Amino acid sequence: MDALPALDRLRIVLSRTSHPGNIGAAARALKTMGLAQLFLVQPRHFPHEDATALAAGAADILEQARVCASLEEALADTVFVAGFSARRRDLSHRALELREAAPELLDHAARGPVALVFGNETSGLSNDELGRCQVLVAIPANPAYGSLNLAAAVQLAAYEVSLAAGAHRVPLPRERALATAASVEALFAEIEAAAVSSGFLDPEEPGRMMERLRRLFARAGLEREEVNLLLGLFAALRSRGGKP
Amino acid sequence: MDALPALDRLRIVLSRTSHPGNIGAAARALKTMGLAQLFLVQPRHFPHEDATALAAGAADILEQARVCASLEEALADTVFVAGFSARRRDLSHRALELREAAPELLDHAARGPVALVFGNETSGLSNDELGRCQVLVAIPANPAYGSLNLAAAVQLAAYEVSLAAGAHRVPLPRERALATAASVEALFAEIEAAAVSSGFLDPEEPGRMMERLRRLFARAGLEREEVNLLLGLFAALRSRGGKP
Repeated sequence: MDALPALDRLRIVLSRTSHPGNIGAAARALKTMGLAQLFLVQPRHFPHEDATALAAGAADILEQARVCASLEEALADTVFVAGFSARRRDLSHRALELREAAPELLDHAARGPVALVFGNETSGLSNDELGRCQVLVAIPANPAYGSLNLAAAVQLAAYEVSLAAGAHRVPLPRERALATAASVEALFAEIEAAAVSSGFLDPEEPGRMMERLRRLFARAGLEREEVNLLLGLFAALRSRGGKP
Repeated sequence: MDALPALDRLRIVLSRTSHPGNIGAAARALKTMGLAQLFLVQPRHFPHEDATALAAGAADILEQARVCASLEEALADTVFVAGFSARRRDLSHRALELREAAPELLDHAARGPVALVFGNETSGLSNDELGRCQVLVAIPANPAYGSLNLAAAVQLAAYEVSLAAGAHRVPLPRERALATAASVEALFAEIEAAAVSSGFLDPEEPGRMMERLRRLFARAGLEREEVNLLLGLFAALRSRGGKP
């Protein structure tokens, strides 16, 4: 497979960005590395003159950027989601350094759209946003001050995947058909409904059950048929439970 | 030799920078990657509030930055000088891509100060400035639009030398408490019993459902707490199912 189509299937998703200048600078960063897909989830200000100014020669990337009402919408048709996070998390997301993640992201892109998600400048990715990611990607940084500017982090990510694409012309044969984010969300909704209706989960006090299950299935990387199987199983359990 | 002293001997030299915001953003980029030496040759505006604002938590790098009247002054004590240039030059400079240049720069830094020189935002390095460089370093970029922002280029350079120095390892997530094989078998038995009692699975014709689920959970690598959670969930679904 040619390298460029794989890069075209990588989308940069900026969630809840506060400063429009960062959106423009990120668009420029994408374009310098040959990427083009920019998704904006609930940007505080967009379009905005600061975004346009900092995009410089990448105005076309901004014009084609898709503004989404939710992260779920931005991820709906993706087959793999990587969240960028500087902080150490104590839950069991698989974590990779950017350089080792890059070829894996391209492998997944051979099969469908792949999202690289960046959270808000100040607060990063929320737990809910993290719950939609299959892997966390960390940019190695100074432990005493690892606060990269958002567009700088996007620049590094775009650089690494671009270099990996150049060095990565032979795709691995993969026969697995991965589930889309939308179908996985439907599965989580079904599991939650079943857990509530059985009395196992108190909807008033959901605790961390769904968060834990999200992380478990994210690690596994669900296939399309597995989602269908689990959807059927939980629906049957919800409607009929144990037969008398 | 320890990696950190080598990084301390790498200096970023920004020559004739037009926009003070880029100086601040470059200071932040340096600090996030564990570099600290910033030299400014004839900056158009410095100090400046835009520089301070964009430096964010790297104000110390700005305060310690050395302002020089000439590139010659900034390079006086260096043992090796690398010029960053996006354009193709037909002069007889040795040219390297950033990734291959990074370890060489560190090698030289073992012997003394090494400069990474970045020219003006618009015009790049002048011929006179190029004449003071021993090697040209290029950042691989989109041939159709390779115009990196100055601070973005500094970020990439600092990232590559920092990784080459092995300076910052991303800590691995905490050790996970994996489930024992016996507890995983107990979980599979519970899932199968629930699937049969709901009518979803015909015990006479089990098909490949359990085989598929085994493969899925094997990929994920179940943790002890996840097994307990799933055991509880399936047991509740089996005994109560959907409440009437």
